[in-house]
Amino acid sequence: MTETVISSATREVVIGFDRPFVIIGERINPTGRKVLAEEMKQGDYSRVMADAAAQVEAGAHMLDVNAGIPLADEPAILAQAVRLVQSVTDVPLSIDSSIVAALEAGLDVYQGKALVNSVTGEEERLESVLPLIARHNAAVVAISNDETGISEDPDVRFEVARKIVERAADHGIHHSNVVVDPLVMPIGAINQAGRQVMHIVRRLRGELKVNTTCGASNISFGLPNRNGINGAFLTMAIGAGMTSAITNPLHGEVMQAVMGADVMMGHDADCARWIKQYREPGATAEANGGRRDRPRRRRRA
Amino acid sequence: MTETVISSATREVVIGFDRPFVIIGERINPTGRKVLAEEMKQGDYSRVMADAAAQVEAGAHMLDVNAGIPLADEPAILAQAVRLVQSVTDVPLSIDSSIVAALEAGLDVYQGKALVNSVTGEEERLESVLPLIARHNAAVVAISNDETGISEDPDVRFEVARKIVERAADHGIHHSNVVVDPLVMPIGAINQAGRQVMHIVRRLRGELKVNTTCGASNISFGLPNRNGINGAFLTMAIGAGMTSAITNPLHGEVMQAVMGADVMMGHDADCARWIKQYREPGATAEANGGRRDRPRRRRRA
Repeated sequence: MTETVISSATREVVIGFDRPFVIIGERINPTGRKVLAEEMKQGDYSRVMADAAAQVEAGAHMLDVNAGIPLADEPAILAQAVRLVQSVTDVPLSIDSSIVAALEAGLDVYQGKALVNSVTGEEERLESVLPLIARHNAAVVAISNDETGISEDPDVRFEVARKIVERAADHGIHHSNVVVDPLVMPIGAINQAGRQVMHIVRRLRGELKVNTTCGASNISFGLPNRNGINGAFLTMAIGAGMTSAITNPLHGEVMQAVMGADVMMGHDADCARWIKQYREPGATAEANGGRRDRPRRRRRA
Repeated sequence: MTETVISSATREVVIGFDRPFVIIGERINPTGRKVLAEEMKQGDYSRVMADAAAQVEAGAHMLDVNAGIPLADEPAILAQAVRLVQSVTDVPLSIDSSIVAALEAGLDVYQGKALVNSVTGEEERLESVLPLIARHNAAVVAISNDETGISEDPDVRFEVARKIVERAADHGIHHSNVVVDPLVMPIGAINQAGRQVMHIVRRLRGELKVNTTCGASNISFGLPNRNGINGAFLTMAIGAGMTSAITNPLHGEVMQAVMGADVMMGHDADCARWIKQYREPGATAEANGGRRDRPRRRRRA
């Protein structure tokens, strides 16, 4: 029953095996968003703050904040983005950078216990990021690739995750503070990508007892109707035991898939959240259930 | 790698572990459809035939045919419905009745190898239905309840299924010709109903090596946005290994969930069926994939 607690100054989110799935909003990320990148570089964070509010409104439990802009002062920009996002919302954040100095700058201004995105299995990353996590008492996303790249074999990716969890322990970081990203491949290119994720998630949960996350929309790269694929992926991954994802909460279809998956897992007591979200105004339980749609009755001969 | 082959005079459908999920259209069933019931009783099968065509058009791989009308000559009506449905479509049928004489009448006129829906674990049902299955070389849906009713404990339901599979073997019926329905409970009443189904499906597949089916829409009884719940349920059940369902193929959202689940399971080679269904007319792979939506790139520090 591993639980990863992430917090802001005033709110706590728990990623856990017996908990509703945690949605980490992915929108605050200048990668592929030219206008946002330019604005952030110029010190204009209005869109960052609007994106923060919109994602929380749409149901995100946490927000990922990334400031990866080429030729910009990423540590300063990330720190400023973290500060401003925390000024407009109280959901906990995932501080996202591949530059250690930027992670450190973000952690320095962060109020609460952050999720740091990310460390990999590469020696140099392990030894630069993990001490930072330990010092700030943060949690960390562990990405299951190393110096050799990303293996297509999920069991090799599992072994990389094991190495990161063990190394984290050497630094005094409990496995409940390591959230493994098993790496999601585009299923249009690798037909077994969905099964691979289910397989590795089951192993991560059963053997390493860790929570899991992923960049969910990678699965649908190159395919039409991406939200349909993303929804199917998340539902099935949750069925296999995945406990969080970095994704776009503004897509209603994806959010519905996650809410439906929570119902299926028994993580929405009395289906209360589902009913609240989808109840037709003024409808009675009878009208929603439908007299005509009663369960198939098996009659006796 | 159990495969259940069902056929019409000219077409074969295979329910199997490594196969796309099989949708059995549920619409030809007068239960709760007053007008249809009255028409069938009066010998008017126009709606039955229209429902058959519409379901096949919507993507059903097989059709369930039920003629359960109180105070009517069910054997004669079921036989006539089977005959007429086979005259307008070549998909294989599931012959559905709780009256043994009706199953027999349907089998007598059926062209091909039918799926018979259903036998239970009740002694009297086992000994009346199984000889019929053996004589007609048919396949059968095995419902996991017995004289004691439907257990809320999925492991008890599993044992009922085991009994039916063993008894079928005594009658010379191979386990590949038994498709177990683990019984789906309304999740609005039993919060663990989703997990129960996943648990029992994994056992049925791993231990009894049988294919599985279910009345999928039972899961959402009493809840709003039933298609959303049904889609989440089917996706997760397919992830756990379920291989067919009796459901309504006219609901696009449910069909999308099944197609997405097939993609996730690696049962849609090169995602060809998904792409064919959802490709925007005239779109290129590039336009569908989206340059701006490229996979999250992890940069190095």
